[in-house]
Amino acid sequence: MIKQDVVVNGVARKLVVQADARLSEVLREQLGLTGVKVGCAEGHCGACSVILDGKLVRSCVTKMSRIKDGSEIITVEGIGTPDNLHPIQLAWIAHGGAQCGFCTPGFIVSVKALLDTNPSPTREDVREWFQKHRNACRCTGYKQLVDATLDAAKVLRGEMSMEDLAYKMPEDGRIWGTNFPRPSAVAKVTGTLDYGADLGLKLPEDSLRLALVQAEISHARILSVDTSEAEKMPGVAQVVTHKDIKGKNRITGLITFPTNKGDGWDRPILCDEKVFQFGDAIAIVCADTEKHAKEAAAKVKVELEPLPEYMSAPAAMAEDAIEIHPGTPNVYFEQRLAKGEETEPIFGKADVVVEDDFYVGRQPHLPIEPDVGFAYMDDDGKLVIHSKSIGLHLHLYMIAPGLGVEPENIIMVQNPAGGTFGYKFSPTMEALVGAAALATGRPCYLGYNYFQQQTYTGKRSPFFINLRFAATKDGKIQAMESDWSVDHGPYSEFGDLLTLRGAQFIGSGYDIANIRGLGRTVCTNHAWGSAFRGYGAPQSEFASEVLMDELAEKLGMDPLELRFKNVYREGSTTPTGQAPEVYSLPGMLEILKPKYEAAKEKAKADSTTEVKRGVGISVGVYGCGLDGPDTSEVDIELNDDDSVTVYATWHDHGQGADMGTLAVAHEALQPLGLAPEQIHLMLNDTGKCPNSGPAGGSRSQVVVGRGVKSACELLLDGMRKADGGFRTYAEMVEEKIPTKYNGKWTAPATECDGDGQGSPFACYMYGVFMSEVAVEVATGQVTVEKMTLVADVGKVANKLLVDGQIYGGMAQGIGLALTEDYEDIKKHSTLRGAGFPYIKQIPDDMEIIYVESPRPEGPFGASGVGELPLTCPHAAVINAIYNACGVRINRLPALPEKVLEGLKSV
Amino acid sequence: MIKQDVVVNGVARKLVVQADARLSEVLREQLGLTGVKVGCAEGHCGACSVILDGKLVRSCVTKMSRIKDGSEIITVEGIGTPDNLHPIQLAWIAHGGAQCGFCTPGFIVSVKALLDTNPSPTREDVREWFQKHRNACRCTGYKQLVDATLDAAKVLRGEMSMEDLAYKMPEDGRIWGTNFPRPSAVAKVTGTLDYGADLGLKLPEDSLRLALVQAEISHARILSVDTSEAEKMPGVAQVVTHKDIKGKNRITGLITFPTNKGDGWDRPILCDEKVFQFGDAIAIVCADTEKHAKEAAAKVKVELEPLPEYMSAPAAMAEDAIEIHPGTPNVYFEQRLAKGEETEPIFGKADVVVEDDFYVGRQPHLPIEPDVGFAYMDDDGKLVIHSKSIGLHLHLYMIAPGLGVEPENIIMVQNPAGGTFGYKFSPTMEALVGAAALATGRPCYLGYNYFQQQTYTGKRSPFFINLRFAATKDGKIQAMESDWSVDHGPYSEFGDLLTLRGAQFIGSGYDIANIRGLGRTVCTNHAWGSAFRGYGAPQSEFASEVLMDELAEKLGMDPLELRFKNVYREGSTTPTGQAPEVYSLPGMLEILKPKYEAAKEKAKADSTTEVKRGVGISVGVYGCGLDGPDTSEVDIELNDDDSVTVYATWHDHGQGADMGTLAVAHEALQPLGLAPEQIHLMLNDTGKCPNSGPAGGSRSQVVVGRGVKSACELLLDGMRKADGGFRTYAEMVEEKIPTKYNGKWTAPATECDGDGQGSPFACYMYGVFMSEVAVEVATGQVTVEKMTLVADVGKVANKLLVDGQIYGGMAQGIGLALTEDYEDIKKHSTLRGAGFPYIKQIPDDMEIIYVESPRPEGPFGASGVGELPLTCPHAAVINAIYNACGVRINRLPALPEKVLEGLKSV
Repeated sequence: MIKQDVVVNGVARKLVVQADARLSEVLREQLGLTGVKVGCAEGHCGACSVILDGKLVRSCVTKMSRIKDGSEIITVEGIGTPDNLHPIQLAWIAHGGAQCGFCTPGFIVSVKALLDTNPSPTREDVREWFQKHRNACRCTGYKQLVDATLDAAKVLRGEMSMEDLAYKMPEDGRIWGTNFPRPSAVAKVTGTLDYGADLGLKLPEDSLRLALVQAEISHARILSVDTSEAEKMPGVAQVVTHKDIKGKNRITGLITFPTNKGDGWDRPILCDEKVFQFGDAIAIVCADTEKHAKEAAAKVKVELEPLPEYMSAPAAMAEDAIEIHPGTPNVYFEQRLAKGEETEPIFGKADVVVEDDFYVGRQPHLPIEPDVGFAYMDDDGKLVIHSKSIGLHLHLYMIAPGLGVEPENIIMVQNPAGGTFGYKFSPTMEALVGAAALATGRPCYLGYNYFQQQTYTGKRSPFFINLRFAATKDGKIQAMESDWSVDHGPYSEFGDLLTLRGAQFIGSGYDIANIRGLGRTVCTNHAWGSAFRGYGAPQSEFASEVLMDELAEKLGMDPLELRFKNVYREGSTTPTGQAPEVYSLPGMLEILKPKYEAAKEKAKADSTTEVKRGVGISVGVYGCGLDGPDTSEVDIELNDDDSVTVYATWHDHGQGADMGTLAVAHEALQPLGLAPEQIHLMLNDTGKCPNSGPAGGSRSQVVVGRGVKSACELLLDGMRKADGGFRTYAEMVEEKIPTKYNGKWTAPATECDGDGQGSPFACYMYGVFMSEVAVEVATGQVTVEKMTLVADVGKVANKLLVDGQIYGGMAQGIGLALTEDYEDIKKHSTLRGAGFPYIKQIPDDMEIIYVESPRPEGPFGASGVGELPLTCPHAAVINAIYNACGVRINRLPALPEKVLEGLKSV
Repeated sequence: MIKQDVVVNGVARKLVVQADARLSEVLREQLGLTGVKVGCAEGHCGACSVILDGKLVRSCVTKMSRIKDGSEIITVEGIGTPDNLHPIQLAWIAHGGAQCGFCTPGFIVSVKALLDTNPSPTREDVREWFQKHRNACRCTGYKQLVDATLDAAKVLRGEMSMEDLAYKMPEDGRIWGTNFPRPSAVAKVTGTLDYGADLGLKLPEDSLRLALVQAEISHARILSVDTSEAEKMPGVAQVVTHKDIKGKNRITGLITFPTNKGDGWDRPILCDEKVFQFGDAIAIVCADTEKHAKEAAAKVKVELEPLPEYMSAPAAMAEDAIEIHPGTPNVYFEQRLAKGEETEPIFGKADVVVEDDFYVGRQPHLPIEPDVGFAYMDDDGKLVIHSKSIGLHLHLYMIAPGLGVEPENIIMVQNPAGGTFGYKFSPTMEALVGAAALATGRPCYLGYNYFQQQTYTGKRSPFFINLRFAATKDGKIQAMESDWSVDHGPYSEFGDLLTLRGAQFIGSGYDIANIRGLGRTVCTNHAWGSAFRGYGAPQSEFASEVLMDELAEKLGMDPLELRFKNVYREGSTTPTGQAPEVYSLPGMLEILKPKYEAAKEKAKADSTTEVKRGVGISVGVYGCGLDGPDTSEVDIELNDDDSVTVYATWHDHGQGADMGTLAVAHEALQPLGLAPEQIHLMLNDTGKCPNSGPAGGSRSQVVVGRGVKSACELLLDGMRKADGGFRTYAEMVEEKIPTKYNGKWTAPATECDGDGQGSPFACYMYGVFMSEVAVEVATGQVTVEKMTLVADVGKVANKLLVDGQIYGGMAQGIGLALTEDYEDIKKHSTLRGAGFPYIKQIPDDMEIIYVESPRPEGPFGASGVGELPLTCPHAAVINAIYNACGVRINRLPALPEKVLEGLKSV
């Protein structure tokens, strides 16, 4: 123990600390400065950045023994407060710099340190600074952060006022389509928003801290689990194993398709007979401190009999492979696709046929905040689980039977999430913390470290695709044949659904009359497959968008011309036979065309022997909603002060669920003339909110948005007087008119049949990507110099949110194209190891051109947005690499060594 | 467990709490808002005040189950921050509203709530508000808080600017004698200063929380202690008893006088053979949480054989009384007093003789913050103890042998103290937390609740005094005879010293040539005697100052005239035969006289049949320093940025040790032209600071102040160049001149001998009090309507500090006179029960008139101040009551029933 006199945020503090404690731990756990966020805890993400004696440091890797007496430490709490924002914080709000907001305090502290030393930085200075200090953001694509930094610098230099930066209410009082900042922005930029780990620190003192005993191999039979020694360790309250779980000890996949050969009960809460993947949980140690829990977890003895590990779909499909889940074949689901005529004859006589194999791998989500949650029994005897879940009601039903608790006795709550990008469409630790709380009767908290985040949460499922196009010599695609194998890891939940996505999105965007295909879901021992932005599209469309370029080459056509010829027009149908709701692609390609031509010219002009430059494009399409008649319910209540409260599960990945809800409600309630502050939000708590459905498939804006609109309309109907005016709360009560309404909306859509045919989505999103890249010939290093997206996401509900989604999604596409992977469990288990894109990997030059075709079914014309930017930007990058240097990468990521190898054979 | 969505300081928070948790616990322990201070934890003090949905509530008595979803809570952290002070906070600083600062956040929140509802309150509105909301302050006397409130209101109404309120540096750059705010003021008004309980919450997570097993009777033999059941309770790490203590298990009194019949080893750390007083500690339970520790403490079985309880000096002096400490007589020390001729003959032939008996009781200190501390082993293997100690080096030596640790292996640190007023001149829990840390090897925290604060910390020791004056008929006192018995409770530490104070201060202020007296220290089973502001004077001078009035009456003289005739003049000596260093009392009485005459007229005019009004005066005198050649050491260091750091133990009761140190150092270093911020303070840590001595007997300003001055002078000498300029740090290093100096000062004084004769103090403080009271005839209720003090404390070092000491000390004198007591262990164990003076008990009209006679030995002419205002204000009150209604109260406090009884017999 050491004693230190330091000054924290201008206040003298006397600290008593362990010499080897991390500064981040002391600031958070001892001083309660939870504005200091801890992401990776290994110096890779900068979320924990603080200023120590004038220098920016990552507090997670700063040992207390390094801090000198008299040192001055500044955290985000010392920069500005909700009532007294610093210009950096206001600029962050104005530019939508805080999406999930988890990296925000670190960035704001970083910018403070930058501007303290360099009051007039250039854009490149700012980018260098963030790169050097490892300030990592997974949501924004960074551009807005540079914009915000430069504006903050202007204010500090006196060249701009705080008022110039602040949002100005339009004269018509409507916030729809504007830059209105999300309600949580102030809390995010001031570090006052409590994420799961912050809430964990703020639990009652008798709360237990959990540590998992996890498998360190990927496939094994469990021979024995001995917890006796662990139970005697200091501070241990209980060691929970599968024997303590009162229910079926399985998480059910729930929506298993009828033709699925499994039953959906394949995922244990705590492993009992077998280990199915690396990281699988075998026991939970519940102790007074995390340190004690981890020390005791190391004492649990697990005896395992190793089994063959099938780490890819082909391996698990091998003839001699044993069944991972005995009784269920490893290939447990197949999806046919049959549209139009048989394709074999067409291919036989086609002018041109192209065929290739494609692989898009196990992209990790890489949120800055690792997974976290907690559970407790409430005073009504209900099990309450708080997590990053983006599908609260869904998860509730998935875990209830496994835990042996009736669904009505579980309440699930979403904590503010420091990024999910889809991985939280799967339950992760919900059942674990729930089981511990049930077993101990005490609040139980579990936080993963980044290794656990990487190894024991779901990943994007790799697709192995073989794809063929048959086309006329003038470039009209006549037929498509596809075959895809989905490596879904050991757990089947939604694996069939994902496989269906292959049928829906391979070749989407193009009017292809005749299609035959077959996809299959394969059980393996690698990381289980979970949702990830684009869900199936980045795999499916990568194949068709790269093959389009191959076809164009074979035809001697320009890739843009080929696409222009084939995209949806009046009379076209999607691969599932659905008529698109709007036909914006031809116009979008026309908008892009002059830019594309200019880019090609520029690439040619700027290419040298050392650095080759090229341009690539791709088309991206994705549906908004769950397949078929997707439904949402939303409640609205008129309060006694004539404000309203909206109750919904519009879950937040970080995209801005609060703003999404507010934007629709404010627009729908325009007749009442409410200020935005008069619309209160009660989101994402199953105890309080009706089931508006999960946040996946870009459904929230459309499906939940329509639910919100519907609820608002019901309220307006109730309030409307004969003269067209509206009743007050008092008048409603007086006249005994209900003040609370349940709005409901069901998408006019149909599920796909066994042939993959149907009209599964009421709205789609459309995009045309253009990527401009430079390839360093000596190293194979690819730099994306510009990304452009012409996007039709319908009416833009909120500019900051939609821009943010697109920039961030494209950045993830660049990562997917070039660096990101989770294949090697050891190497890819850190942010850096997994290829996280820092700012210098993402171009500062990103351009978005909106084509706002109003959607008939979208609320006020809006479609979804979140998945679009990651449908297919990587194909544009890959096509650009080919355009630059003639190297075609069909298996992602396009690491320098891979490109270099290609360059050698060109 | 319940879940609540609330807004705390403008930020939405999701809380998971026990339904029966107190709001204060949740805010402090779960949300880390340690600006919410908990004093009494039973709704008596208002330190924990917060605004809940617009209403001021005491959060310690607000159960979480009462908080509604959506509630808004405002704590001091939500009102303003160090960088962005609220006008209330700035006004608090400007008026010296924060002394110890512990009540300050509660007051500031309270004023916020007041001004939110009433923007233009009158003084009386403010007083009513504080009274109604039980905002209790023990330091200030309240007047400054009303002033601050009114100024804050002016700023909020736009009638005054923040700049008007802020301190303005004088043109000469000197802060000596000005209103410069104490360095800790900003932290205090923003709730960012960490007191012991706050630091306790900020300890590393493996820290243990302690609960004491305490005696519930006052005198007993211990037959057995069984900890076996307690050790098995949840969360218990260890149960520490006397058997675990490696040393002598005694706290030594250290400075026991040679004639003391005890050896000073009478106070056990943990009781082994006997229990000596209610609350004595028998065992310490060390557990993971305080709740667990308390639950286990209840399971420790202690078998006791009750012994006779001697609850007063007379009871313990009875012939049949057994020895409380076997082998040591209950009367264990006697102090003779012999000045001048034998007094018996003088009394035999005197014109007038007056005699009376007086009793001043067990006044409780009533700090708002209950006792608190913690200890741990540091990485150098040293035992570090943090507490409210105001005598760090002293306590270190008092507890080291008992714990069995070499003094050099103990470091003691003072936490910011929420008021001590002297009780922390005794070790309280230092040895207990030390013993627990030694036994467990882990950080150990102990916080008393208010019952423990009252029952198990020292109290003012009652004096039973018989006093006689012999005087000539024209009012010249010829002789004094005194007899005093000091009830010092069961522990002897400093009891002999306190008894000596009777010899020094009975009759002080007056030139009495011939004195004989005998005082004795008596061991009893009531609360042990500890230092308390005035230390001996309030008891001693009460007797002589009331007897002066009796003499005046007998002589038919005016009390002021009688005093004027007898006070020190050139040639006079004190009761110990010392020549006073200045002779200011005659002039001070002359200054008071017109005010006194006016007050008497007014009292007469305003008296009615129902309410009698009267005026009383008294003279107060006290010495500054420990008896004899009191010494201090202070270090000063020139830093590499040419700032300096002062290292000293100028302990802080709340009086402003930081400002005291800074004021002297800044004045002494004037030649360097340093800004106040360039003088850093490293105070009150024995590991870093030399021994400047304890903070008692108003010695700090004089004795430590001279040490600071001496250190500054040595540094200046080292820095001085031949041309009169000063070297920089770089030049000092270049020229190999030391940059750190040790200043030392020893008071030119001598200890008193066996006859009580000597010159024990180099400086004294002098005061003349006037009290104007109203007595309600029907009830006996006394209201003090005005207090006036003509004070000579030498040069005023800092106006805010000195005013603060005087207002606050006089308020405690009113409490002593009218309500405060700790006699009945049950009834007097709460703030309210013990007669804590709320604002309506203290007059808003308090006047101080300074007579600044420069002290030759004081630094820059300053004398001490802290004890003066509590030397004898209560005698003025009591004399005023007599003046009003003819009732003479010789036994304090003057409760209404006592006055009423007196009225019946008038």
